Amino acid sequence: MLPGVGVFGTGSTARVLVPLLKAEGFEVHALWGRSEEEACCLARELGIPFHTSRSDDVLLHQDVDLVCIYIPPSMTRQIAVKALGIGKNVVCEKAATAVDSFKMVTAARYYPQLLSIMGNTLRFLPAFVAMRQLLAEGYVGDIQVCDVRVYGPSLLDQSYGWTCEELMGGGGLHTVGSSIIDLLSYLTGARAHRVHGLLRTFVQQNGLIRGIRRVTSDDFCFFQMLMAGTGSNSGGVCCTVTLNFNMPGSFVHEVMVVGSTGRLVARGAELYGQHNGSKGEELLLGDSGWVGPEVKEMPLPHLQGLSSMVKALRQSFQAHEERRSWARGPVAMAPTFEDGLYVQTVVEAVKRSSCSGEWECVEIMSQEPDPNHNLCEHNTLI
Amino acid sequence: MLPGVGVFGTGSTARVLVPLLKAEGFEVHALWGRSEEEACCLARELGIPFHTSRSDDVLLHQDVDLVCIYIPPSMTRQIAVKALGIGKNVVCEKAATAVDSFKMVTAARYYPQLLSIMGNTLRFLPAFVAMRQLLAEGYVGDIQVCDVRVYGPSLLDQSYGWTCEELMGGGGLHTVGSSIIDLLSYLTGARAHRVHGLLRTFVQQNGLIRGIRRVTSDDFCFFQMLMAGTGSNSGGVCCTVTLNFNMPGSFVHEVMVVGSTGRLVARGAELYGQHNGSKGEELLLGDSGWVGPEVKEMPLPHLQGLSSMVKALRQSFQAHEERRSWARGPVAMAPTFEDGLYVQTVVEAVKRSSCSGEWECVEIMSQEPDPNHNLCEHNTLI
Repeated sequence: MLPGVGVFGTGSTARVLVPLLKAEGFEVHALWGRSEEEACCLARELGIPFHTSRSDDVLLHQDVDLVCIYIPPSMTRQIAVKALGIGKNVVCEKAATAVDSFKMVTAARYYPQLLSIMGNTLRFLPAFVAMRQLLAEGYVGDIQVCDVRVYGPSLLDQSYGWTCEELMGGGGLHTVGSSIIDLLSYLTGARAHRVHGLLRTFVQQNGLIRGIRRVTSDDFCFFQMLMAGTGSNSGGVCCTVTLNFNMPGSFVHEVMVVGSTGRLVARGAELYGQHNGSKGEELLLGDSGWVGPEVKEMPLPHLQGLSSMVKALRQSFQAHEERRSWARGPVAMAPTFEDGLYVQTVVEAVKRSSCSGEWECVEIMSQEPDPNHNLCEHNTLI
Repeated sequence: MLPGVGVFGTGSTARVLVPLLKAEGFEVHALWGRSEEEACCLARELGIPFHTSRSDDVLLHQDVDLVCIYIPPSMTRQIAVKALGIGKNVVCEKAATAVDSFKMVTAARYYPQLLSIMGNTLRFLPAFVAMRQLLAEGYVGDIQVCDVRVYGPSLLDQSYGWTCEELMGGGGLHTVGSSIIDLLSYLTGARAHRVHGLLRTFVQQNGLIRGIRRVTSDDFCFFQMLMAGTGSNSGGVCCTVTLNFNMPGSFVHEVMVVGSTGRLVARGAELYGQHNGSKGEELLLGDSGWVGPEVKEMPLPHLQGLSSMVKALRQSFQAHEERRSWARGPVAMAPTFEDGLYVQTVVEAVKRSSCSGEWECVEIMSQEPDPNHNLCEHNTLI
């Protein structure tokens, strides 16, 4: 039996997510927005019976068994941890900092019977599922290089807000880079141990953000990750990622994995491959033809990934009679909160590298760094 | 009147160059090869009346007024400097080290009336000539990012030789990266002041190179260059270059320049552009349809660039009665030996960065670093 859903957020992802949930048979009972007005407006548009701007009203809602959190990163940890504490299953977007991510990991470990997955995922996209399978089967031989680029229009909201602020989790690296970091570890089965990167904010002001206000989040970022290699490639895997969000009117999403005997490339939602001996690329998986909603702000691979995740959620829950029970199988490939912590750690290492100019080690937090952290966080973020 | 030509080298470039020279009306009088046999074989194939393995026989040949040097990098400096000293005009490929490049600059400065240009150039390719013009006219606004990728099959020769040796000037960075470094300074009108890079040799042995022999030259290289910006982009231009020569069966040569109001992309020999306001790319310059020889080892942009350079040489020389006199105009855009020194300096800074892991400054040599250098060079290179 499918659980009742409560959704946090009124942004573009929440707007897409609700119809996807409904299409799979989930009932969305409650919507939370930062203001009553935003919540009311979107609830009416999407036909959600209850809306609120108080988080407890959703978390404690008796019909809500699954909470989907798609809100600004700096608010994610608080809601996610509380939801688990109340006994709700959680799907959420990334947090703003590694410390927040660590707290989410702690909560998830404390309630292992509850579902807790990161919901900003490319892992469910069929092209990447197939790519991972082919990599495991040795299609490219020993993996040498992963080369990713994402080009698109600005990620900034229409008005000044968290998307403009590096410290609030805005910027290409945090927003899009994190899903790439997660994807690459999913595809290769390895994690970055050293990273190097450079972030830039080429557009610091625009027609809507001006005066004393200034964008601090990156609109251009490239970074390299070194991962342990396998087989004959003892030197390790080099990943290079280029993100450029100063390219209105275009959208490029290309993930290439080059190995000793061939290569695989996902362009958008299509997968191509070529063995070293062969003359040309072969289409391995075509675009299935997206029939869902088109969202200007959301690239097709992310949209299709979200849609596939919702399908997996449905499979996970419908196997059980109990509304809150779920089967691990269908969502086994989803990124856990531990994966979320890894991703956030890499993001922060890349930012450190951009400041220091040096290669930075990726060291996953194993305990909270500072007991006074909440105080610090309060000062810097609010 | 066109000068008589002497060609050094029996590799793939020399093999292509001779027919291109003949097609423009140059007479090729003499060919030098490392062995009598190689020289004899290619001279017969290309119909060159005189061949030798002694460099002086070409340099002192009375009908030779222009010397084209396409030989392993470690031998280039010696021939180029000597040719200028004998009063011959010189077109040559890059040298192996910055010290060698510096000696070539010194010689070129000493004989300013002689032509001395770097002959491994993409500058003459019509797509890049047009790209530079459009950039100067403000097609993309203020330049923010240059993003270059070259993917192709292995650069190694069939047998063990300099292409396998990093110290001899082998590898993707030295061979192909140098032409990209030159191109980007030509396109942007700026030079790199800091670089960061990573070099790898994924394939250290193959069917032909085995036993105690091991490839040391890079088959994968990723580097970033920071250049001074113009206009509102006071933060500078970021260039990222990815070179991957573990991709048999493919050839990708893509140079993209992204600016504040649009972008330009050269794919192979074609040029595309897009303004930020517009919906799609426009084809600005199509492939003119290459009718010359196809060379497996040589990518089309390089081949067409070489062909355009030979045409420019013809225009430069035919303006004058005297066989050795030439007009600066048609070859004004060619890279000088000073440009060659800059490129070599960047190459070495990228290599240093790959070892140190740090950003390295690009400092152009202004005097020879060590009076005993010849001794050192002798020890390491021979």
